[in-house]
Amino acid sequence: MKNIAIAIHGGAGTITRASLTPGKEKAYKDALKEAVEAGHRLLASGGTALDAVEMAVASMEDTPLFNAGKGAVFTNEGRHELDAAIMWGKTLKAGAVAGVRSIKNPVKLARAVMEHSEYVLLGSYGAEEFARTQNLDFVPQDYFYDAYRYEQWMDARDSGTTSLDHSEKSGKKEKKFGTVGAVAVDAEGNVAAATSTGGLTNKKYNRIGDSPLIGAGTYASNQTCAVSCTGSGEFFIRAVAAYDVSCLIEYKGYTLQQACEEVVMNKLVKLGGEGGLIAITPAGDIALPFNSEGMYRASKKNEDETFTAIYKD
Amino acid sequence: MKNIAIAIHGGAGTITRASLTPGKEKAYKDALKEAVEAGHRLLASGGTALDAVEMAVASMEDTPLFNAGKGAVFTNEGRHELDAAIMWGKTLKAGAVAGVRSIKNPVKLARAVMEHSEYVLLGSYGAEEFARTQNLDFVPQDYFYDAYRYEQWMDARDSGTTSLDHSEKSGKKEKKFGTVGAVAVDAEGNVAAATSTGGLTNKKYNRIGDSPLIGAGTYASNQTCAVSCTGSGEFFIRAVAAYDVSCLIEYKGYTLQQACEEVVMNKLVKLGGEGGLIAITPAGDIALPFNSEGMYRASKKNEDETFTAIYKD
Repeated sequence: MKNIAIAIHGGAGTITRASLTPGKEKAYKDALKEAVEAGHRLLASGGTALDAVEMAVASMEDTPLFNAGKGAVFTNEGRHELDAAIMWGKTLKAGAVAGVRSIKNPVKLARAVMEHSEYVLLGSYGAEEFARTQNLDFVPQDYFYDAYRYEQWMDARDSGTTSLDHSEKSGKKEKKFGTVGAVAVDAEGNVAAATSTGGLTNKKYNRIGDSPLIGAGTYASNQTCAVSCTGSGEFFIRAVAAYDVSCLIEYKGYTLQQACEEVVMNKLVKLGGEGGLIAITPAGDIALPFNSEGMYRASKKNEDETFTAIYKD
Repeated sequence: MKNIAIAIHGGAGTITRASLTPGKEKAYKDALKEAVEAGHRLLASGGTALDAVEMAVASMEDTPLFNAGKGAVFTNEGRHELDAAIMWGKTLKAGAVAGVRSIKNPVKLARAVMEHSEYVLLGSYGAEEFARTQNLDFVPQDYFYDAYRYEQWMDARDSGTTSLDHSEKSGKKEKKFGTVGAVAVDAEGNVAAATSTGGLTNKKYNRIGDSPLIGAGTYASNQTCAVSCTGSGEFFIRAVAAYDVSCLIEYKGYTLQQACEEVVMNKLVKLGGEGGLIAITPAGDIALPFNSEGMYRASKKNEDETFTAIYKD
């Protein structure tokens, strides 16, 4: 019997003990536990890694705690534009959507793109037009309304209007790169990865981040590993971060840990990229590296106890 | 004095001698020559590789011969949606746009995204909103009208209505993956890559191909090479083709030729992907591999004669 395992993340960034109340910390850990265990139950009952990552990500999309699905942040125009991707390591098939506004679970739409279209990546209105040919839940924009997210947006917008030319580095006390993701390996040794996000608070111009880009924020191959990233997306795109982890394993013979270390702690840092990723191998090895203050994360392997964590230590 | 060199492509696919009249063949070769020599002149006068690839691609965008800019194919809705990307190997900075409809030269908008926004990839209306803040030419949709492209669309649409579920492989006599691209190295040893396309004829749902995706259709790093792809985009995305060439050089010590051979003739073929790519190293080595019948291509290194070719032999 092979190992089954699943790991998830709920975003990375400046997440310190001081910034979370005990109640909020518990809420995050409970949500992570629920999502990772839902995926794990599916694996334990013989389900595929593909179904498991879709289920875990959909679970996180359904809570307002994470910046994906229900909890998606506000754009500069006060809307919500969601990105998601899924990839199946067995076949290297993938599906993704960018900038959708009325889909309850973007990860399910990404799965439908992968399985029921001839395309990999669909954008905005076209992705929603395709969604109407599938059996998916639509929601009005106010489904995504959340008082906390609204306040975040007001803060970002206000500082944005006075400091439009400032880089991401400057003038902000707190940086959070909310995104959710899951990677899993099933009893047949197949790996899969999925990522979903509301993107950057106050984002403009239909900005598309790394999450829906195969190789950047999401990648899976049975030959190497499955990866889902979270962080300052533009740097993850330029670093082709997810596929880089895979290449270091395939071409340099690195272990998963070594490959993750090189990408997250060295290459991304040199470029100025902040965040982390989760990765899993067909053998069931798991890595959860991040170079930021914290990363919401959880994992469960075989019948081991569920692991959940937020901070660095 | 270091080598200066530039290579360009104008798309790949089922391009045979029988399918091109001598007049049309000459028109293509002239257009390729003009574009590659414009870029080369710029390099020879001390210009950067970044400026050279932008200029060469813009030159090809301005002729109706290639599926990019002026010659962009029709979407299923009878419109034109253009994608483009540019990447600078010196800094790993990149800019890209997907699904723009009224920009004369999408490659120039990609350059503006890279230099004047905090983002890498902008989609559709948002990308055009950003373009309005830049000094770029807008055109009405009928600028892209071309009788030949219209006929291509009618053919594709008619076969599409009777064989919606057929895969790309079936029912088509001719496959052409029109896209234009350029890679160059300047006198300082910096490489750059740019790609621009109208995408697939009759494409639906705001499909985004590999061209604007960093790592898939476009990539450049001074550590390895610059790459621009053309072909069945979905396969190039799943193969993370452009970055894969770079990784084989960086991590396995392959020469440019070996890396291109492995990606285009082995990995892509196994996946079912058809097309080719152009690649260049900081030392000035050039590779123009393709696994299809033909690829419009040209190159010029130092004061060598300009090379132009279409077919396999």
